[in-house]
Amino acid sequence: MRREIILSLAISAAALGAAAEDAPIIQDAEFYILQAQHAEQWAEDDAAVDQMLADFREQNDGKPPNILNILIDDVGFGDLGIPELNAIRGYETPNINQFSDEGMRMSRFYTEPSCTPTRVAQMTGRFPARQGMGDTAVDIAGFGLRGDEVILPEVLSEAGYATRHVGKWHMGDIEQSWPQNNGFDWAAFPIHQQGQLSIFNDDGIKEGVVVGNRDHDAKYMLDAFFRPDSSTMVTGVEAAKGEKAREVHMEAGERWTAKKYDEMNQRYQDQTIESLNVLAKGDKPFFLQYWPLLPLHNTRSTRDGYDSANGGLYVEKMQQLDAWMGEIFAELDKLGLAENTIVLFSGDNGHFTKYSPQSGFSAMIFRGGKADTTEGGIRVDAFIRWPGMIKADGIVNNMFHVSDMYQTLIRFAGATHLIPRDRIIDSIDQSASLLFADAGKGRRDSLIVYSDVVPEAIIKDQLKLKVPPKGENPIGAKFYNLYWDTREEYPISTEVGAWGGQEMVRVLGRHLARKQLYPDVEHATGIPYEGIENLRPETIKAVDAWKIKRAAVQK
Amino acid sequence: MRREIILSLAISAAALGAAAEDAPIIQDAEFYILQAQHAEQWAEDDAAVDQMLADFREQNDGKPPNILNILIDDVGFGDLGIPELNAIRGYETPNINQFSDEGMRMSRFYTEPSCTPTRVAQMTGRFPARQGMGDTAVDIAGFGLRGDEVILPEVLSEAGYATRHVGKWHMGDIEQSWPQNNGFDWAAFPIHQQGQLSIFNDDGIKEGVVVGNRDHDAKYMLDAFFRPDSSTMVTGVEAAKGEKAREVHMEAGERWTAKKYDEMNQRYQDQTIESLNVLAKGDKPFFLQYWPLLPLHNTRSTRDGYDSANGGLYVEKMQQLDAWMGEIFAELDKLGLAENTIVLFSGDNGHFTKYSPQSGFSAMIFRGGKADTTEGGIRVDAFIRWPGMIKADGIVNNMFHVSDMYQTLIRFAGATHLIPRDRIIDSIDQSASLLFADAGKGRRDSLIVYSDVVPEAIIKDQLKLKVPPKGENPIGAKFYNLYWDTREEYPISTEVGAWGGQEMVRVLGRHLARKQLYPDVEHATGIPYEGIENLRPETIKAVDAWKIKRAAVQK
Repeated sequence: MRREIILSLAISAAALGAAAEDAPIIQDAEFYILQAQHAEQWAEDDAAVDQMLADFREQNDGKPPNILNILIDDVGFGDLGIPELNAIRGYETPNINQFSDEGMRMSRFYTEPSCTPTRVAQMTGRFPARQGMGDTAVDIAGFGLRGDEVILPEVLSEAGYATRHVGKWHMGDIEQSWPQNNGFDWAAFPIHQQGQLSIFNDDGIKEGVVVGNRDHDAKYMLDAFFRPDSSTMVTGVEAAKGEKAREVHMEAGERWTAKKYDEMNQRYQDQTIESLNVLAKGDKPFFLQYWPLLPLHNTRSTRDGYDSANGGLYVEKMQQLDAWMGEIFAELDKLGLAENTIVLFSGDNGHFTKYSPQSGFSAMIFRGGKADTTEGGIRVDAFIRWPGMIKADGIVNNMFHVSDMYQTLIRFAGATHLIPRDRIIDSIDQSASLLFADAGKGRRDSLIVYSDVVPEAIIKDQLKLKVPPKGENPIGAKFYNLYWDTREEYPISTEVGAWGGQEMVRVLGRHLARKQLYPDVEHATGIPYEGIENLRPETIKAVDAWKIKRAAVQK
Repeated sequence: MRREIILSLAISAAALGAAAEDAPIIQDAEFYILQAQHAEQWAEDDAAVDQMLADFREQNDGKPPNILNILIDDVGFGDLGIPELNAIRGYETPNINQFSDEGMRMSRFYTEPSCTPTRVAQMTGRFPARQGMGDTAVDIAGFGLRGDEVILPEVLSEAGYATRHVGKWHMGDIEQSWPQNNGFDWAAFPIHQQGQLSIFNDDGIKEGVVVGNRDHDAKYMLDAFFRPDSSTMVTGVEAAKGEKAREVHMEAGERWTAKKYDEMNQRYQDQTIESLNVLAKGDKPFFLQYWPLLPLHNTRSTRDGYDSANGGLYVEKMQQLDAWMGEIFAELDKLGLAENTIVLFSGDNGHFTKYSPQSGFSAMIFRGGKADTTEGGIRVDAFIRWPGMIKADGIVNNMFHVSDMYQTLIRFAGATHLIPRDRIIDSIDQSASLLFADAGKGRRDSLIVYSDVVPEAIIKDQLKLKVPPKGENPIGAKFYNLYWDTREEYPISTEVGAWGGQEMVRVLGRHLARKQLYPDVEHATGIPYEGIENLRPETIKAVDAWKIKRAAVQK
């Protein structure tokens, strides 16, 4: 049975021209330094991992595991899964805490510092900076993820998986970037992100939470294109593979409101449950991706949570999220899927500290939040549950980067041969670390922390060097011991910088030198919203405004 | 059996003149406001508590529980008992984590902002500011705890307990303040604190960690009394009730060193184990107090922990502490005491942030540390274990102040009638909260946070007002929501200050007004070291220097 599957995979692999089963995956420099030191042990571990995975498939009708990939939005480290820290803030997330007890906490899990790059890293297994996707856009922008990236659902689809995406996508407003064109059989997603959807609407403007298109003095207004009207932008679309997308839930002339945002969130939750039911009926293993827009929320207009624990918009939405996760975990049980489905649950970056006073929540253990390259921006709660395969109620503390989930999940799916061999893959296969529940089995000990295309920090082991801005004397570079000083408040350069700083810079140097061989590329560009078959008239006008702005620089 | 005990207690109670079994305990104003709202429920709960305690005694040969009171020094919140936070810092405290799983975490446990006042509050059940004990001294000072305070071991001793104290005491260098003169049958303790003992010694001076008596340019030195020689100060003493104290472990002319400090710490650990064995053989219930000087430590001279997880003096000593706690818990098991012994394990104040860079550890969840009245200074890890009586692996999140342990432990010992009725008791009886494992059963919702004799903050529910310094416009007072903002970074005055600030000030106002009825008193004063029978010649000289300094202001 197992041989049949591998055979069918080998055939479909031909479609991914770059993949070659026997060629090694091309990695960044630090990987080879570790490999030179651990090759023998790794080979031994890999054989054991293969055996464990084969045993699983044998007990699972020859099929690899289903995968449910839940990525949540803008949540602070420690907000979920630790009852003691819940208590400090006076709320409870019982379903996620229970889930954490059933799975493994990856206690040193790094993301990129904001939504788009984190999602790109998880999907492509590559640093967003390599592909011009380190930055993000709130409004109509005309760029996105390159179609020639070979993303996780593409690999899994090739490997025989049924694939679905529900919720936030946020990797571009152009057709080639969208999930249904990148390996997903079906997708329901908003074109933009929670900025537009949760607060950049009439309610948010009325509450003074954002600047926008209705809070200005019209008599001085010359440029009607400057302040976009978010109600003219495309909101949520749905599409099946090979079909045009359709906007849903908005009529021509309708206004986008906080209430509609709440309805959208509820719809994605419902569609996730529906998708589980659809996928459970199929013969194929499945990959279901649910990327809720919660817990971030910052308008009070539709708030009905005054009696929830200790108020605060953020906590209210986190409890909503927790209730929804409870529904999903219960549905997995009900459908008999809990045992053969890997559930990955993680945050996408740190807390949105800009909203801290209004949202009633601030960063706690680490300094900074979303957009920062301090640990508060890039350390997230991350759990993975795979009953019988990954230790329950465990903690694994070696370093993970969100991109590692790419190789690791693909390995669990038995599809490593489909990973492209013509580009650097930053993702590290961390199967052994998870299956053996052993920090010593980790294969990553360093990370280049980018802010967009600028490397801002280098992490190796427990040490972190803040890369000094150009022109600043590197001898004063801030150097931290992250175990000693979680909040990066006490630079240790004077004590250990004598050696450390220089070697840290060499880690970065090797990374940059390797870009000579494998240069960065630009993100894809295109006409926004092309490929959506039911654009509203006001949306067409908004795209026209975007075209005028684009043309202005080429006159 | 129970009646006999109560009878014998009633007789010995006569010795504590102020106690009167039927008179209510005199509390601060906020207590009566809560009592007016909950009297009926409290009476019902109290009856249930009494029944539970009676049932326990019945199953325990008519005796109330033993009590082991472990108070550790200068530990940051979250450093102990939460494996997820251990992981973030790269170390493990398995014994304390295990203990936490067996007991109840009091997740909102407040101390005073430094060692001496916290210990005074726990021992006397009263704010240190009421008795001139809000401050502390490192060197020879001639003051301490008043003999007329009725402290916890005095009450328990009167109630028939065998009582012992081992380790840090730090409530004065005068005879009337010492444990053997305040209810303890036997005590082994250092006269001063970890400042003198761990770093204010020849090794600390050599390492440049402190200023001291051997790092100055002698040719300008006129005042040989200015820089005390810590080796001339009394170090550790031992004494039994009614006997003179004797200094141990120092010969005339000997120097105090980091090595001797390590030996002292080991001695206290050994004496705790010995004491358990002595007490286990007796007929009486026992109260054993072990106040280690660890984990704070800041000289490298005797450091042998280079191979412990992630280095750092603080972590090394915390792991030492954890190993020692493991020994103690194992000894309780071995002696068959685990089931009928309450173990209270708590920190005495926040992390010593001044040592952060050198010690390799900094505050994490809350802002600030020792000496600060931000939460980082006064929130500590606190656990209580009482098998079968207090829920295992529980979290109780209502507010506790360290003084509450006074009434609560005395209640558990069945000796509430021995608490004095002639003074304000700040301690609140929190028996119901612990025995019912129910935050809703808490009887404290506010705290005046003193820094020495100055009220610096007022806490009520989740709100905290920083009292503005004299002369500052109170309308700008910083007001925080502690659930939303653990680090007190985002004042909420503009949002909710309209009502809140004023009422918070009234909480303080009632507290201060009540001092008109029950005025604060001064700490006790006296001749340092009087009552130690083997003072070294150099110590006698050092006391003479102190006398010259004292006389200088009276010329």
